[in-house]
Amino acid sequence: MKIGIIGLGLMGGSFSYGIKELFPNSEIFGFDISNDNFKIATELGIIDSKLNINNISNFKLILVSIPVDKSIDVLKIVLDNVSDKTLVMDVGSTKKNICSKLKNHPNRKNFLATHPISGTENSGPNAAIKKLYFNITNIICEPELTSPDILNFAYSLFSKFNMKIINMDPASHDEHISYVSHLSHITSFILAKTVIQKEENEKNIFDLAGSGFESTVRLAKSSSKMWAPIFLENKDNVTEALDEYIKNLDELKQLIVKNDKKSIVNDLNNINRVKKILSGINNKKNEK
Amino acid sequence: MKIGIIGLGLMGGSFSYGIKELFPNSEIFGFDISNDNFKIATELGIIDSKLNINNISNFKLILVSIPVDKSIDVLKIVLDNVSDKTLVMDVGSTKKNICSKLKNHPNRKNFLATHPISGTENSGPNAAIKKLYFNITNIICEPELTSPDILNFAYSLFSKFNMKIINMDPASHDEHISYVSHLSHITSFILAKTVIQKEENEKNIFDLAGSGFESTVRLAKSSSKMWAPIFLENKDNVTEALDEYIKNLDELKQLIVKNDKKSIVNDLNNINRVKKILSGINNKKNEK
Repeated sequence: MKIGIIGLGLMGGSFSYGIKELFPNSEIFGFDISNDNFKIATELGIIDSKLNINNISNFKLILVSIPVDKSIDVLKIVLDNVSDKTLVMDVGSTKKNICSKLKNHPNRKNFLATHPISGTENSGPNAAIKKLYFNITNIICEPELTSPDILNFAYSLFSKFNMKIINMDPASHDEHISYVSHLSHITSFILAKTVIQKEENEKNIFDLAGSGFESTVRLAKSSSKMWAPIFLENKDNVTEALDEYIKNLDELKQLIVKNDKKSIVNDLNNINRVKKILSGINNKKNEK
Repeated sequence: MKIGIIGLGLMGGSFSYGIKELFPNSEIFGFDISNDNFKIATELGIIDSKLNINNISNFKLILVSIPVDKSIDVLKIVLDNVSDKTLVMDVGSTKKNICSKLKNHPNRKNFLATHPISGTENSGPNAAIKKLYFNITNIICEPELTSPDILNFAYSLFSKFNMKIINMDPASHDEHISYVSHLSHITSFILAKTVIQKEENEKNIFDLAGSGFESTVRLAKSSSKMWAPIFLENKDNVTEALDEYIKNLDELKQLIVKNDKKSIVNDLNNINRVKKILSGINNKKNEK
């Protein structure tokens, strides 16, 4: 089985490791716009050969795992060159724009928009890990626009990865994910920025920061090339989520200024419900 | 060696476990305002007997590990009842107010203000863990006001816990810790609040949230009774840190609105320096 991967970073590289685990005889063709990444991916055995866009008609699957602002153009070129049998997937964190722009492509039936809910704060081929696609939730959009045969292959693949599949329309996906993922990244990036600005002598951060700080700014290590385009692609939802977040911060600030301990305790108690939500996430993971 | 612990939650309970590890023959007397916590702490073996405030004159050490707004009154009562030889410590996350209010106590020389940089998002005696005080940084304030003998005992104890000791004046402590710890808690609490408000049907959070969300809202599980008083005790620093945080959020929002990808990428690249800072924290931990 021939598989193409365009973008050999965390997401693309990890997908290759997963495919090689499930299908040891598959042949992986890869491309990355960075020669360094391509070289590292080759050395790590993430890919077997270089992908040639003019020679993909007999591929079973092509994954596009690049920043979301570049995905649409690349997906169009890929779809221009595939055969009837090739599944083309992206794994980007925004779906509305991509689905809308590909809606009328002659080979739209080859495409499935997916968003595997998995990742780490690290990037590049060296960050790729085998387990990234296993036992996770994968959101898919508009499966009715994918041809039944190709969709069937996609589902069988997801099943081998033991994924939980959720079907969402692209607009709902972008709206919900702006809160659960994009806002988390922004809060973390900006927390790191604020602390770094304050502590010009970074030595103090080393000394005073505990595991709480570390956990809260973990996402601030994420790739700027991946995340700047996500914030822009999902601008309306992200700015709305940001407005609500800032409003809530400001409300807490006013309670602090007014010494309103009772309201703060009430608020934090309500927020503590997140314990139950998080243990739900973990139970879900353990069930798999 | 007789040791008293007032407040048998995460911090007090974990201190007991550490003491029992280092001094198996020590006798631990405890008190908690919650009968439930006292009962659980007794059942878990965190304490051996109930502490009687009128009978502490021959204690070697008394730890006060309760919410910071209650600490000063309790510390005063404890200091009223100790002998020349008893070390009295708190472990609260704010130091300026406590040091100022105890400055003129006749037994000020018995007291050492400490802030062990350690904790988890869990609370209560069931959350206590043996390792909490080992191999950590401990900030101490105004050691020159503690009698040399008692300070000597404190240092020998910290050394047995393999702590790194940092001496800071109380005002600097509260200023720096407001950024590195208190602001992290607020960003996490409010992220959880904003997402919960949005996702009235919490099922969506289960399905869509990944490990990034989980890591960023971990601190939102923290105890309201501990944290509301901390924000209020450190009001000036916390609101200043919040103002800067909100200003930075707003700046990012404006860049998103203006589609200024170049500036966002530049910003995130600068923020990515936090990688080096965090690896510094981890290297420091590994060195110990």
